[in-house]
Amino acid sequence: MEVELKEMLDDLQSLRQSLSDPTLHASIDKLQSCVDHLTHLAKSVPVRRSKVKDMSAEVVDSNPYSRLMALQRMGIVENYERIREFSVAIVGIGGVGSVAAEMLTRCGIGRLLLYDYDKVELANMNRLFFRPEQVGMTKTDAAVQTLSDINPDVVLESYTLNITTVQGFETFMSSLRNKTFCPSKEGSGVDLVLSCVDNYEARMVVNQACNELNQTWMESGVSEDAVSGHIQLLIPGETACFACAPPLVVASGVDERTLKREGVCAASLPTTMGVVAGLLVQNTLKFLLKFGHVSPYLGYSSLKDYFPTMAMKPNPQCSNAACLERQKEYILAKPARDAEAKAKMEAEASTAAADLPLHADNEWNISVVDDSGLESTGGTSSDALPEGLIHELPSADEFQKPPASEALDTGIVDLEDLRRQLEALNAD
Amino acid sequence: MEVELKEMLDDLQSLRQSLSDPTLHASIDKLQSCVDHLTHLAKSVPVRRSKVKDMSAEVVDSNPYSRLMALQRMGIVENYERIREFSVAIVGIGGVGSVAAEMLTRCGIGRLLLYDYDKVELANMNRLFFRPEQVGMTKTDAAVQTLSDINPDVVLESYTLNITTVQGFETFMSSLRNKTFCPSKEGSGVDLVLSCVDNYEARMVVNQACNELNQTWMESGVSEDAVSGHIQLLIPGETACFACAPPLVVASGVDERTLKREGVCAASLPTTMGVVAGLLVQNTLKFLLKFGHVSPYLGYSSLKDYFPTMAMKPNPQCSNAACLERQKEYILAKPARDAEAKAKMEAEASTAAADLPLHADNEWNISVVDDSGLESTGGTSSDALPEGLIHELPSADEFQKPPASEALDTGIVDLEDLRRQLEALNAD
Repeated sequence: MEVELKEMLDDLQSLRQSLSDPTLHASIDKLQSCVDHLTHLAKSVPVRRSKVKDMSAEVVDSNPYSRLMALQRMGIVENYERIREFSVAIVGIGGVGSVAAEMLTRCGIGRLLLYDYDKVELANMNRLFFRPEQVGMTKTDAAVQTLSDINPDVVLESYTLNITTVQGFETFMSSLRNKTFCPSKEGSGVDLVLSCVDNYEARMVVNQACNELNQTWMESGVSEDAVSGHIQLLIPGETACFACAPPLVVASGVDERTLKREGVCAASLPTTMGVVAGLLVQNTLKFLLKFGHVSPYLGYSSLKDYFPTMAMKPNPQCSNAACLERQKEYILAKPARDAEAKAKMEAEASTAAADLPLHADNEWNISVVDDSGLESTGGTSSDALPEGLIHELPSADEFQKPPASEALDTGIVDLEDLRRQLEALNAD
Repeated sequence: MEVELKEMLDDLQSLRQSLSDPTLHASIDKLQSCVDHLTHLAKSVPVRRSKVKDMSAEVVDSNPYSRLMALQRMGIVENYERIREFSVAIVGIGGVGSVAAEMLTRCGIGRLLLYDYDKVELANMNRLFFRPEQVGMTKTDAAVQTLSDINPDVVLESYTLNITTVQGFETFMSSLRNKTFCPSKEGSGVDLVLSCVDNYEARMVVNQACNELNQTWMESGVSEDAVSGHIQLLIPGETACFACAPPLVVASGVDERTLKREGVCAASLPTTMGVVAGLLVQNTLKFLLKFGHVSPYLGYSSLKDYFPTMAMKPNPQCSNAACLERQKEYILAKPARDAEAKAKMEAEASTAAADLPLHADNEWNISVVDDSGLESTGGTSSDALPEGLIHELPSADEFQKPPASEALDTGIVDLEDLRRQLEALNAD
């Protein structure tokens, strides 16, 4: 806009010089001051930050990546900058997908592919991300606008389409196959697909695409009463696919569109959707950057703050033909997998002696403590903390062990209790 | 801006009519098309949505509250609109506080009080909420700008100050005491204080203020390695205060400012902070709108997806004098509390027969099932679901019970096993 205003000022100046009648100069003056005023107004319009070539760990206020690169110094991630090599596809840019996209954008992901066919409405304003002034825009356009302002380093590709249509599915498949961003990558053109859709039909389509492409993906969902949700990791052939065992309450045999009635909508909350998006992207970061434990399934039941976990094996009777093919391949590849795992273990054992621990130069003196060490010292790891710091809570592992007093009680009552139980059994 | 541009078009038109030399008309044409272009550009500048007088449950795209009011129809919340009566104070508008503020704003909270003294930096861009064009603004100003655009119905009060200074603490206290927004409210002028600060000193100041005011608050925190966090509910006199038992790793006896070194910063992730903000505001909604179980403490350990919970009683040897006073009051008020609880139970019992269940007119046919009913039918509650819908997962309660097969196994091996154990004990 500033370019156009500068051009107008020049045009007005040359018009003034061409004017023979000096009484008209007052009009030119007025127009010029009006352009000046507009120039001032235009300056308050957002200016984008410039792109950053390399991620730096330098601790200065102007570095958008300092707090992420600090994950390396803390010993959490070995090589954070690898995140720029990864492509993630997000299907459904609603209450969960839009927040997941923003989180990945702020983490500096290499490339995001966004799929949605819907438009932004005021009725979406009870969830994070979209703003009232974006009402009427497609969700993909609005997302690209916001995300490119936040981090111009991320390559954004948006697809305004419905993946459940024939045409939409073809474009979806070819976009996942496209390897231009990272030609050396094995498999498809993306590292992970995140399903953030709100219906069973779309989930089955993502499942079909990922089974066909042998593409690892993560599924997410939020209940219609807005107070629970889940995330799930799906690796074709290795874990259950979405058709092997559909999660939570699902429509079976009934067209789900008939379940929705005029004038009725599902409830939603920014809290539940924010938590589910956070858990989904945390699992994504763990999967891509290889740290922590990638959860195969994690539920969130907010009324009781209950978080169930589980793992599901593929169903040999799965109705999805591509799933059965992937299952066969996975079984056939077992000897190769075992050999690879063995070679890796041997290589690690031989280099372990020469290697320094990952956090040797940890300037915070906060170290990732070995579990076995923690147990032997009874949960206190004060050796690992600088003077003046104490662990107030036991570690997660300590918490899951039965308390010592319980074991003691059992030991004391054992004899009498056993005798009584034995008598009861003998009496039968 | 659009007014100015319209005026310029009129001025150009009258200038054209005053011009005797028709060769100059081309310059006017060019200026006019330039103004047209600017008018088009100006239309993409944010326009705020108008205020809404009453929250409506009407299911139309233009209703920003339809998905929240649906919580009533779903039987989750009895009276959602009460949220407009509540005031929440958020101390610290960083990675957790800003997201908490946005969630509450989108939920249509009555009034938010925001406290921070810091400015927005590019180094904050790895967390949700702030945008690069806000760099240099105070966090309070930037938050008010964003939040008032999102929901003009929320009353926003911002305090750009450091609560750990003498002057800052006084303003903090008087702002919490101010009851102009809801003069009939008992106690202080706010319903809840959320502590979203990043250091021990500020937490102790919030603790002091809330103990003095007998103010319920919630504390939140994220670890310096960015991969875990927690929320905690603190009710003066009833639960442990922050000085009774400081959570997680704390600085004791050492000035924590000496722990921070030049060129070193803590790591942070939008995922962990988003999850903690989501859990914090979910607990806030449960507390204010009286649904579900308000968690006294909830941890989030992302490497293992572990969520510890616990409750802490106040410490009779607490170093905080105001805490000891609140503890004394709480004990003295016990007979009154017991009498009130008894009266409430009796009143509920006498009206229970006449009352219809809360979800009788639930148009979704998704019901909040009574726990005891679930247990007696062995986890299947297909009666409560419409035809074609099944519960794929057991309920939270079901999950916590030992699986039936395990009990069966024990029954089968019992006799031999008990004999062996008894022999071993007799041998001693």
